[in-house]
Amino acid sequence: METGGKPVRESVEFARIVAFTDGVFAIAITLLVLSIDVPPNLSGSAMHHELIDAWRQVFAYFLSFAVIGRLWIGHHRFFSHVHDFDRRLLVLNLAYLSLVVLVPFPTEVLGDYGHRTDAVVLYAVVVGSTALFAWFMLRYALRAGHFRPEGQAAAVLAAGGPLVPALIFYASIPVAFASPVAAQLMWIATIVDVFRRS
Amino acid sequence: METGGKPVRESVEFARIVAFTDGVFAIAITLLVLSIDVPPNLSGSAMHHELIDAWRQVFAYFLSFAVIGRLWIGHHRFFSHVHDFDRRLLVLNLAYLSLVVLVPFPTEVLGDYGHRTDAVVLYAVVVGSTALFAWFMLRYALRAGHFRPEGQAAAVLAAGGPLVPALIFYASIPVAFASPVAAQLMWIATIVDVFRRS
Amino acid sequence: METGGKPVRESVEFARIVAFTDGVFAIAITLLVLSIDVPPNLSGSAMHHELIDAWRQVFAYFLSFAVIGRLWIGHHRFFSHVHDFDRRLLVLNLAYLSLVVLVPFPTEVLGDYGHRTDAVVLYAVVVGSTALFAWFMLRYALRAGHFRPEGQAAAVLAAGGPLVPALIFYASIPVAFASPVAAQLMWIATIVDVFRRS
Amino acid sequence: METGGKPVRESVEFARIVAFTDGVFAIAITLLVLSIDVPPNLSGSAMHHELIDAWRQVFAYFLSFAVIGRLWIGHHRFFSHVHDFDRRLLVLNLAYLSLVVLVPFPTEVLGDYGHRTDAVVLYAVVVGSTALFAWFMLRYALRAGHFRPEGQAAAVLAAGGPLVPALIFYASIPVAFASPVAAQLMWIATIVDVFRRS
Repeated sequence: METGGKPVRESVEFARIVAFTDGVFAIAITLLVLSIDVPPNLSGSAMHHELIDAWRQVFAYFLSFAVIGRLWIGHHRFFSHVHDFDRRLLVLNLAYLSLVVLVPFPTEVLGDYGHRTDAVVLYAVVVGSTALFAWFMLRYALRAGHFRPEGQAAAVLAAGGPLVPALIFYASIPVAFASPVAAQLMWIATIVDVFRRS
Repeated sequence: METGGKPVRESVEFARIVAFTDGVFAIAITLLVLSIDVPPNLSGSAMHHELIDAWRQVFAYFLSFAVIGRLWIGHHRFFSHVHDFDRRLLVLNLAYLSLVVLVPFPTEVLGDYGHRTDAVVLYAVVVGSTALFAWFMLRYALRAGHFRPEGQAAAVLAAGGPLVPALIFYASIPVAFASPVAAQLMWIATIVDVFRRS
Repeated sequence: METGGKPVRESVEFARIVAFTDGVFAIAITLLVLSIDVPPNLSGSAMHHELIDAWRQVFAYFLSFAVIGRLWIGHHRFFSHVHDFDRRLLVLNLAYLSLVVLVPFPTEVLGDYGHRTDAVVLYAVVVGSTALFAWFMLRYALRAGHFRPEGQAAAVLAAGGPLVPALIFYASIPVAFASPVAAQLMWIATIVDVFRRS
Repeated sequence: METGGKPVRESVEFARIVAFTDGVFAIAITLLVLSIDVPPNLSGSAMHHELIDAWRQVFAYFLSFAVIGRLWIGHHRFFSHVHDFDRRLLVLNLAYLSLVVLVPFPTEVLGDYGHRTDAVVLYAVVVGSTALFAWFMLRYALRAGHFRPEGQAAAVLAAGGPLVPALIFYASIPVAFASPVAAQLMWIATIVDVFRRS
């Protein structure tokens, strides 16, 4: 793979990468709804019980919608500063998307088993790793000179970037062994804070 | 979060927000079909029975297709008058999308349990809240000055906006306790009327 | 609803309708793969049996991929001749899409019960009605003057349009009562012919 | 069907084909996540066991994400050299997409039965055939003169094209009868190599 030296920014190519990436984000965020489920053919009281029990799935849905939505805003901002695109950055972007697309899986598990430590740990690992990967990609693009000259913005990005939320999600892992609820409260606080800062 | 003062309307950014939003609407409306389901491996008469019973799921499908389709038309018109986009509007738009994407869930429940009050109430709450949120977003954009100067259209929008259908969906909730069918007839009348006025 | 008099073809609006429509087609065609399914946790020979049995689902998948793909080509050509878009045409287009998006449902039933008359009838009704609706929409657009002046193409469209395949799918319904296989052979012949003519 | 003589490259038409194709790739790659699944309502130890067992599904997910991602990069490059589009190429492109969209099916089977020869053979057949079809489409476009004049790139494409990976996937079929694991190691080596060369 060539590194750095061969930018591929012809506008059509670049636009297709952006459109593909946005498409993947849009689909991943929409698939989240499939993790909410009430089985058919239940009797009256069983169905009522299931419907009330679905609050946990609905919570996991909104949580992950906020997570993927925020990752998209960040990626959106990242791309708006990228000047050119080599193949390494293209591959990194694909690898990053493979983590974003994975998010519906721990979301489904969290919706079904949100009171259990292992479900909470799985969620924290996937979301933390996705944010961490975003940070690595940002760092690579900065160092390899893919940002536009007027990119002081890049410095801002790096400062307010995804490293801190990534670390907080990792930090919630030991907390989840003591209290799954406390770990989830840490996430909510992080997400609210990240949206406030954005 | 900055409010109002920092418009981000560079055309590429704006176009990406529009494309992402349209993509989410397109996916949510298409996922509705997954709520129609006939189990495999049934015997002849059981399968025939299930197929006929699926009319309820097909009804819920077309109902929600009309609902999301109309919300998309409204949003489409809303965006065509927006002049700039601050981060608050971006976040409001994401929150709005999280309600639109949720619609397949009450649709599935309605398709399975349309004769039951709780399924009808769930549907009315989700669709009513989505329309109400659309109205709040419209109102915010009007007040914060995000509309184009030639936006008398904005006044028209506000008049023919989503507030009335939202209120009718909420009003159907007490009706559903008396008769789930009557509540659903209210929705159909509302949707037909909204399409006729559009 | 205004009819005819109020075209909304500003390029951005028109482009969004096209993009939304293409998006819905792309998602519907891709969801078809979800109708192919081998259950988990089977023993060796049961799994092998299921895998071989999946040929029917794979057949239904390719059949519907060809159907939706051809409908998309037709719609694509239709839009390339449309000059303006009133709200009635917008609503007709949405209604048309609601039929296209429904196709994965009879596809799944056909994959599971392709040897049964009712599954074949369901498929023929949905696909036939979708093609018929395409023809009505085409006819409306022609009569209401939505085509571009250089639209002799429109006449060609009308001639080679979706009416004939629609009628053949309907004609396969009585055939299915005698032989579900013969009905499906009619469809294959129709689709091959339509692709050859296109 | 006309062959070759009737290019349809008006920019809007061409752009719609590209957008549709990219959309289908984006959806197919995102649907892969649905093949990872932990059933609800399990007891503590059963759930923990299922979660650990899901590594195989997660492996199949990342494998297919890399496969579809690489096919998309190749297709992306292919389209960037195409000069015009006749109907035959349009149909070939649709047929190619029908194979790409199929990939989530063998992915799900591989995730559930990755230790079994038939699951591995199914995967190798589908992915090998998809890559082979890509090579046929490329060869057709080259011979029918659909590439841009400055397309020495075309020769490069043909050289580094999808034929070799296709043949390796086919070659893994007999290997799978001896050792399913060895066949999968062949795939991984191929994918890593293809990404390194790209």
